Amino acid sequence: MNLKIVGYLISVLIVMEGVAIASCAGVALLMRDELHEILLMLCCAVFTSSCGIIGAFLLRPRSRSIQMGIREGFATVAGGWFIASIFGALPFIAITGLHAYDAFFETVSGFTTTGATLIDSTLKLRDGSTLPDGVESLSCGILFWRALTHWIGGMGIVVLSLAILPILGVGGQSLFNAEVPGVKTHDDQVTPRIASTAKILFMVYFVLTLMETLLLWGGGMPLFDSVCHSFSTIATGGFSTKNSSIAYYDSSYIQVVITIFMFLSGCNFILHYRALKGLPLRQYLSEEYRFFIYVLAAVTLIITVTLLFSNVTDPMSGEKYHMSPWLSLRAAAFQVVALSTTTGFSTADYTVWPGACGMLLLGLIFMGACGGSTAGGMKCVRLLLFLKFSFSELRRCIFPRSMQDIRLDGKRMETPVLNKAFGFLAIYVLTVFLFATLLPMVCEMDMITAISTSATCISNVGPGFGQISPVNTFSWMTPAAKLLCALEMLIGRLELYTVLIIFLPSFWKK
Amino acid sequence: MNLKIVGYLISVLIVMEGVAIASCAGVALLMRDELHEILLMLCCAVFTSSCGIIGAFLLRPRSRSIQMGIREGFATVAGGWFIASIFGALPFIAITGLHAYDAFFETVSGFTTTGATLIDSTLKLRDGSTLPDGVESLSCGILFWRALTHWIGGMGIVVLSLAILPILGVGGQSLFNAEVPGVKTHDDQVTPRIASTAKILFMVYFVLTLMETLLLWGGGMPLFDSVCHSFSTIATGGFSTKNSSIAYYDSSYIQVVITIFMFLSGCNFILHYRALKGLPLRQYLSEEYRFFIYVLAAVTLIITVTLLFSNVTDPMSGEKYHMSPWLSLRAAAFQVVALSTTTGFSTADYTVWPGACGMLLLGLIFMGACGGSTAGGMKCVRLLLFLKFSFSELRRCIFPRSMQDIRLDGKRMETPVLNKAFGFLAIYVLTVFLFATLLPMVCEMDMITAISTSATCISNVGPGFGQISPVNTFSWMTPAAKLLCALEMLIGRLELYTVLIIFLPSFWKK
Repeated sequence: MNLKIVGYLISVLIVMEGVAIASCAGVALLMRDELHEILLMLCCAVFTSSCGIIGAFLLRPRSRSIQMGIREGFATVAGGWFIASIFGALPFIAITGLHAYDAFFETVSGFTTTGATLIDSTLKLRDGSTLPDGVESLSCGILFWRALTHWIGGMGIVVLSLAILPILGVGGQSLFNAEVPGVKTHDDQVTPRIASTAKILFMVYFVLTLMETLLLWGGGMPLFDSVCHSFSTIATGGFSTKNSSIAYYDSSYIQVVITIFMFLSGCNFILHYRALKGLPLRQYLSEEYRFFIYVLAAVTLIITVTLLFSNVTDPMSGEKYHMSPWLSLRAAAFQVVALSTTTGFSTADYTVWPGACGMLLLGLIFMGACGGSTAGGMKCVRLLLFLKFSFSELRRCIFPRSMQDIRLDGKRMETPVLNKAFGFLAIYVLTVFLFATLLPMVCEMDMITAISTSATCISNVGPGFGQISPVNTFSWMTPAAKLLCALEMLIGRLELYTVLIIFLPSFWKK
Repeated sequence: MNLKIVGYLISVLIVMEGVAIASCAGVALLMRDELHEILLMLCCAVFTSSCGIIGAFLLRPRSRSIQMGIREGFATVAGGWFIASIFGALPFIAITGLHAYDAFFETVSGFTTTGATLIDSTLKLRDGSTLPDGVESLSCGILFWRALTHWIGGMGIVVLSLAILPILGVGGQSLFNAEVPGVKTHDDQVTPRIASTAKILFMVYFVLTLMETLLLWGGGMPLFDSVCHSFSTIATGGFSTKNSSIAYYDSSYIQVVITIFMFLSGCNFILHYRALKGLPLRQYLSEEYRFFIYVLAAVTLIITVTLLFSNVTDPMSGEKYHMSPWLSLRAAAFQVVALSTTTGFSTADYTVWPGACGMLLLGLIFMGACGGSTAGGMKCVRLLLFLKFSFSELRRCIFPRSMQDIRLDGKRMETPVLNKAFGFLAIYVLTVFLFATLLPMVCEMDMITAISTSATCISNVGPGFGQISPVNTFSWMTPAAKLLCALEMLIGRLELYTVLIIFLPSFWKK
């Protein structure tokens, strides 16, 4: 294992992070934050960049061609996300006065595009005081940095899942290698092709963000909020600049725009790229995409009907859902898309919805959206293969000698590809159970809170059920529980394998 | 599909069920139940037997040799359990005065060895009255029939899983075919070998029941209660003759005896057979068996320590667990064994235990015990293979080209065998989710109640969490929810495939 090259690449990443923090100081200046806050932000930027520059200088490779193997790739990805979260926590510590573990939680939640926050009016700061207006007490520089961590993390995960993980032979995207432009798999060397793929994806990412910002701004949301919410949406993050999330704006137009862009961000980015290039529409109708749409449509329908005939008063908005079909549909569609794409925005406290709503939404938290998107979760493509496999095993009871191929988009899936997908699901379920068991050991919570916290962290959603409903935050948890959550967010964001193999002894052997 | 032969075999089963009901009339006479109750029980017996005899006469096969295929086997097993539950409900309807759906639930719960009951002091009978003393209001004849449904169901499942399902190519036992005496697999014909295997297993079953009865009776439990609890234990059922289950006797001796016999009933019955035959002990140390013991020991240890340092007052017994190490260990071991073997007896309300106890016990409900036992659940052997598979996929990230065999007891597992096991786990999880979603649609309940009801029914355990904790029963559910639970118990008991393939259109095609 060549730790030097890993350290070098991470150092370069930290330099870029410093530049990103510096841009927040610029925004803070534009938004007329207090002077000492702007200066503190600049200090964080300078410190971060300096650390990166020193690291890069000390660890710079001798030869011009960088030789990297699979292990170095895994270590760079997992280490990069982790160390970037440590430096990213500095503005929260310096400006807002959060405890270090709280700041780390918030930054990991940002970079992993989870969007779980612990900033509310009850959170104790280092000096014992609180933030009386919760998120709305934060300065604009900090709010922008919070949104930017999402945006950077989302960009990172798109490049990771479409350009880097296929080369390492991991991730849902390996199921449709051929579709990735400029990437060849089963190649032990990380090649310059990554750069060209990343450029294409960045363009898609940027165009989507710009479109949403303009639409929100045009719909009456202030420009600053529009930018922050667009960053949050396209990254399927979930941080908001308001305590009551999207419910604050109470606008059908804004909710519809955000629903559409959350949905788009949950689709494979290769599809967007093809759409922008004007390639044929048939590509849009991949089996995974159709499965995703069918599931969302079915769940939205069930929840809308349930809300129509129920008598629930929402604790956030005070609305009675049974009063209007439009209100029911809007609330149901928004929450279904928000949770399945693992964004985690909220317009209502869905935990008080009756009937099967809770179980269906919990199911969506597990499912996630399409592979190759910024969304987390198991991903539709794996779930689809899983269902096909179950059905084929059921049929095999009657026809024991028949061959039952499992096909995706007409192509026969090979056993190693299926095994990788099922191994992922297996480890996913085991990890959810492990953390749901560990969390109540270090922090008092009921079982549904434990299960949904574990699920929402590994799927990078944000809110859950019980004590982490949309009207609550993670502020009440013990420091140990917050760190466990942050670890689980990282494991989930990096598609499990990337983080977990680091704990295998054979990873470190020659 | 030859429905006639299926009908004939089920009719013969119903004749035997009538004889079993008649034996309850005998017990009722011995225990001096009221005369009209004894006569009603006899009527049920005569009616059941008559229906069976008429059916068998009408559907008797022409030739002496019975030709059966795979489909007929599946249909007989699933249909037999279902129709036996309908006739078995008659005594509850006639003597106790339960609603038909309540009686059906109780009987299915008995025959599937689930042990979930809805008989408590709040249950409304057909005439609008209640049973003031809950289970203890029932006549001895009915209590004996309840216990006997467990015993018959348990015997049925041992024969099914060790003698019949391997021939149909389904079930955990197919993983170690070679160990089953007198059974050859991959044979489309149901052969007379089943009879010899069944005889051996019946002997083991009977010896275990007799031993436990004598030990309980010797420990001060009345003979009638001893027999009923032994029936319940060996079948890993869970029906008790007391409202507060085993907590009623408040005896360490009784709890230890029952813990040991629950454990034995959760082990593969082939192992008991070998022990009784004096075959070498090495056979006992199969990987599955060791895994089962390690898991139980680890969970018991964690829960004991948690209880030792906690300050919980049990709502059932009023005991404070932190007072005595022995009390903590006894309570922890009893509940761990009771839930993992899917018996579901209780000596305490474990739902108020703090920390990770709840999640660990919920995990045991999913896991179940060893294959080839009377226990339900996923079975340890499948979970063990699942863990080995996950670990091998993790290692494969680092060594992509290496072969990673999955071995059990030193033997390499073939892909079709693994696929059958993983297909089972896949369908298991999907079924739990499906029913946890359907249940709150037809009956108001919180999410942890929905999840644990679904899990406890498919694993045939009995109690769960939330509104079905050990101090509650299923009486509060709506009739639709009760029927859903009964259906799920049947699906779980018959190892999923057996019931679910009936819903495949291809099952009914020529």
